[in-house]
Amino acid sequence: MVRYFEDIAAGETHDLGSYTAEREELLSFARRYDPQRIHTDPDVAAETMYGGLIASGWHTAGACMALLVEGFLRETATLGSFGLEELRWQTPVRPGDTVGVELDVADKMPSSSREDRGYVDLEVTAENDDGDEVIYWLSTNIFLTRAGGGAWSAGTD
Amino acid sequence: MVRYFEDIAAGETHDLGSYTAEREELLSFARRYDPQRIHTDPDVAAETMYGGLIASGWHTAGACMALLVEGFLRETATLGSFGLEELRWQTPVRPGDTVGVELDVADKMPSSSREDRGYVDLEVTAENDDGDEVIYWLSTNIFLTRAGGGAWSAGTD
Repeated sequence: MVRYFEDIAAGETHDLGSYTAEREELLSFARRYDPQRIHTDPDVAAETMYGGLIASGWHTAGACMALLVEGFLRETATLGSFGLEELRWQTPVRPGDTVGVELDVADKMPSSSREDRGYVDLEVTAENDDGDEVIYWLSTNIFLTRAGGGAWSAGTD
Repeated sequence: MVRYFEDIAAGETHDLGSYTAEREELLSFARRYDPQRIHTDPDVAAETMYGGLIASGWHTAGACMALLVEGFLRETATLGSFGLEELRWQTPVRPGDTVGVELDVADKMPSSSREDRGYVDLEVTAENDDGDEVIYWLSTNIFLTRAGGGAWSAGTD
């Protein structure tokens, strides 16, 4: 069942599961989207302060986003996001790391001008196996209300 | 020649060039990193408020990041980024769009505790063919100083 704005509560938390950072995937992502040598060249990366290859922070964001879609957004009447209020990359993700991802619904606000939608602040936090936080972001997402739910599809299942 | 913290000036602007959003690339990125149906299913997307397939905002960020690396970061002594102070997705990118990307160096601050590094605020802005802004972000990036430049490699060319 699709969850609308009214069905989502501030304070909800969701365990979004985990992914493993596969070396080949980190390399191929970085070659196309973030070709800094710390992300693309293991030999060069080994000589830097990082001591070896690290994931592009944008890869970490994307891998967490996939889990956010599969574990939360897919079952909601989401209309997308305006953007991020903040994003932090605290600890590098390295090949072989398993990254666990959690969602906190930080806040929700009805639209002041349109009864068919509302805004929800989502906090995504991910940790590596050692319990070190690797990424955090706060986004404002738009959701259909039940009142406006029939107006047009949001592309949910 | 590698540019260090001292060589980068607040107020610099760089035209980072452009990319074309290829339909197949948008679909394959979204299947792995943002599998919302507005990004993965053209038929469903056509029935939504967007009227057709749109790029994942994370894809737009990655494609702009690649141009930022190639047109600026690759020639600097960058140590990476703490994260983003803000990111906005204003207008969806659609298959076939050409997206032009610009960098503004908004501010720079020496580290108060370490003479080997300094911090630079980078603003990335991208527009589609119609001049509509599609993404904006403000990041804080870390750069080696010349004074500390010999201490260890930053992984630049």
